Amino acid sequence: MKKILLNCDMGESFGVWRMGDDVHAMPLVDQANLACGFHASDPLTMQRTVALAVQHGVSIGAHPAYPDLLGFGRRHIACSPEEVTALVLYQLGALDAFCRAAGTQLAYVKPHGALYNDLVRDDALFNAVLEACASYRKGLPLMVLALADNSRELRLADAADVPLMFEAFADRAYLADGQLAPRRLSGAVHHDPQRIFQQALAIAQGEPFADIDGKPLQLRADSLCVHGDNADSLAVLRRLRASLDAL
Amino acid sequence: MKKILLNCDMGESFGVWRMGDDVHAMPLVDQANLACGFHASDPLTMQRTVALAVQHGVSIGAHPAYPDLLGFGRRHIACSPEEVTALVLYQLGALDAFCRAAGTQLAYVKPHGALYNDLVRDDALFNAVLEACASYRKGLPLMVLALADNSRELRLADAADVPLMFEAFADRAYLADGQLAPRRLSGAVHHDPQRIFQQALAIAQGEPFADIDGKPLQLRADSLCVHGDNADSLAVLRRLRASLDAL
Amino acid sequence: MKKILLNCDMGESFGVWRMGDDVHAMPLVDQANLACGFHASDPLTMQRTVALAVQHGVSIGAHPAYPDLLGFGRRHIACSPEEVTALVLYQLGALDAFCRAAGTQLAYVKPHGALYNDLVRDDALFNAVLEACASYRKGLPLMVLALADNSRELRLADAADVPLMFEAFADRAYLADGQLAPRRLSGAVHHDPQRIFQQALAIAQGEPFADIDGKPLQLRADSLCVHGDNADSLAVLRRLRASLDAL
Amino acid sequence: MKKILLNCDMGESFGVWRMGDDVHAMPLVDQANLACGFHASDPLTMQRTVALAVQHGVSIGAHPAYPDLLGFGRRHIACSPEEVTALVLYQLGALDAFCRAAGTQLAYVKPHGALYNDLVRDDALFNAVLEACASYRKGLPLMVLALADNSRELRLADAADVPLMFEAFADRAYLADGQLAPRRLSGAVHHDPQRIFQQALAIAQGEPFADIDGKPLQLRADSLCVHGDNADSLAVLRRLRASLDAL
Repeated sequence: MKKILLNCDMGESFGVWRMGDDVHAMPLVDQANLACGFHASDPLTMQRTVALAVQHGVSIGAHPAYPDLLGFGRRHIACSPEEVTALVLYQLGALDAFCRAAGTQLAYVKPHGALYNDLVRDDALFNAVLEACASYRKGLPLMVLALADNSRELRLADAADVPLMFEAFADRAYLADGQLAPRRLSGAVHHDPQRIFQQALAIAQGEPFADIDGKPLQLRADSLCVHGDNADSLAVLRRLRASLDAL
Repeated sequence: MKKILLNCDMGESFGVWRMGDDVHAMPLVDQANLACGFHASDPLTMQRTVALAVQHGVSIGAHPAYPDLLGFGRRHIACSPEEVTALVLYQLGALDAFCRAAGTQLAYVKPHGALYNDLVRDDALFNAVLEACASYRKGLPLMVLALADNSRELRLADAADVPLMFEAFADRAYLADGQLAPRRLSGAVHHDPQRIFQQALAIAQGEPFADIDGKPLQLRADSLCVHGDNADSLAVLRRLRASLDAL
Repeated sequence: MKKILLNCDMGESFGVWRMGDDVHAMPLVDQANLACGFHASDPLTMQRTVALAVQHGVSIGAHPAYPDLLGFGRRHIACSPEEVTALVLYQLGALDAFCRAAGTQLAYVKPHGALYNDLVRDDALFNAVLEACASYRKGLPLMVLALADNSRELRLADAADVPLMFEAFADRAYLADGQLAPRRLSGAVHHDPQRIFQQALAIAQGEPFADIDGKPLQLRADSLCVHGDNADSLAVLRRLRASLDAL
Repeated sequence: MKKILLNCDMGESFGVWRMGDDVHAMPLVDQANLACGFHASDPLTMQRTVALAVQHGVSIGAHPAYPDLLGFGRRHIACSPEEVTALVLYQLGALDAFCRAAGTQLAYVKPHGALYNDLVRDDALFNAVLEACASYRKGLPLMVLALADNSRELRLADAADVPLMFEAFADRAYLADGQLAPRRLSGAVHHDPQRIFQQALAIAQGEPFADIDGKPLQLRADSLCVHGDNADSLAVLRRLRASLDAL
């Protein structure tokens, strides 16, 4: 069985404003999704976060977003598919410049926030992001949400010749089809460290876990999205890292 | 004798706002300096301008600037050298993404506006830009102002292992040392098409021409910076193109 | 009968990028809707356009928008109602500062682009804009689209104690209920000057005109939205101004 | 003797990024200098910080800056005087909109960061800011640095008919003429709470205190600039508040 990876959104500071605790989280993860300046980060923050990832041998993914610093990329913006292809390409290249300068290269692409969410429903946007990946570099993988059934995503990605990575969440409740329970639903986000840890282990081992209605849900994921921005989430992350290393 | 090239600032529209006449100027030049979104342009404009350059076999240079859309990159911003390295790298990568997607690659770097001017006086900033070029891609050339004596620039660039390209201006008056006469001086900008054409030809052939005081000035330039944003400048450009092709 | 007014979107340049022909259009209109820096304009452009309006005795309206220079405010952004109240207040105050400095004051508010369109469908956003107007200055009017039936808008505005102004369009085709025909429909925008002029006169006189299906439509409008950004639209505008003055 | 006031830079969060501890500092100060969206803050943050100031009866000042979110307004930007007048007016109006909506009005203007520093040396920029204040509202005061000799500032402000407020710093070392010791000098910033407290009391009582060379310096200040963004600075601020209240 292929070991599940841990990915984490990082490099989310902007200018004088700090976010996250990348210094402590970086050594614990396998993949760092780095903001590219559209929803967070800036050239100097990108350069430093790439250096930190390289130092710890962490794979670097681009975390492109709608152009919305004020809304942290969480607000849908009605961009056309051709606008989305162009703004994703721009961000891939900008981040990859720091990767190149640090002697490495972009390893994958994981859209952020509202753009990530929009891909679930909108084939034209999904294709727009696939086109950006495919035209940037042959074989550059796109990371998307692992669902109970990912045949739609696989079909679209195959047509564009883009490999997919599937990610799952340990701290989010799921609907029956593997979509994330909307945040407005009560119980949509797990706060109990033990619960988060158990869901993470189940996903890591390919075993079923309880969806938001308590029904068993099984997901095939390549990577688990984790958080490391405070003491609590770092504690869960350390325990998870140790458990995965011991599998 | 190596034939002089013609370079032109292009891709300077922003969203709905148009600037320049790239469609008519592109077929007449050898090198297009493309804005990277910091002083002008946007992802879609960059994508389209790269496509236009590729269509006409024109070499694509990055035209990075201080982050100042409102001031079109013409206002000095007190950035630290490390900020400059990072913001140039960011812009190189962003533009190169569209080059890659179009099957080509960035050919050179020419800083824009206030950043271009600041390089003349500030070794730390010059080194910061050199570092961006060198770390982005070995051998990526930097285009700078041809002076009567470019030994300072050559010394710094050699230390950073960055090749230089030298450019001259047909429509600007020069000081005795080869610096551009400041725009506030009367006669700093030539408006007479015949004068512009003559100065261009002199530079192209490595012959002396009159500086702002009427004294002879000789420059060694690889490229002439031309404009093609209106009917007058396009007329000069067409005549110049024809004359250079006939040399 | 109250004479219909002519309103025009103005102050839509941004930095070095020019848009519109405010100098020629300003003397011909009664109301200038001035961009506030979120979809177009900048502090200096606002100051100059306010001065031009004052010079010609033209009433100054704020033209607030979603924060989207790149998209010219035409892209829907999923802002919460409280975000909309705050961003409209911000823009009203910013523009009014130039009005005060010029010895006048903001006369009305007309939302721009996607924000304008969103108000038609979304009561929460409509209320958010009303709250911005009401809390900024008692009695400050909001300009909205004249429909066959504006009872919804009047009900919401009355509850917020905000006076409404209704505007109509001479160069747009209408659906039966007075909504603008979506631009994607063929015939949605009139290009024939005579057609534009006739529709303008009909609306100005409160007479029926043909909707997109040729059926008669009657609108009660306080103001006609006109354009003056090129020779053709200026010609229509001059003829319309003369005709209205002769009524 | 007029009691010295305490002023504090506030409202410096931006979107999801937090800065400062306005909730705990606001009840302790007399004057809140609120960011206006150019170096920090955003419409919603401005609205909420104005509400907090009103709740605690704190006087609201505008804290306008160069347009530089990424650099937090700390980087000099080569703006022309007319650009500065316009960008200050824009920010005054934007902030005042939230004051009006909250039933109060802007009480004074204190430029931020690089703009604040540039005023010391540049009469044209100083006049540009004075013009913004004077044209925005007759009698609106400008807050500037208290020097050993403020005759230059008083002369320029009198000519523009703008009242001045003078502020001093408890945690900064001073040069002999009352300029702040540049941050690059060792000892430029006091970190010892007792030292900060003593300098504050001396200034509050109009008594001499030691400049960076240990020589006595006496300043006439209307207001002391304090910080309240962490536990240490809040502790000093509480002690200072209590001591001033007991004077």
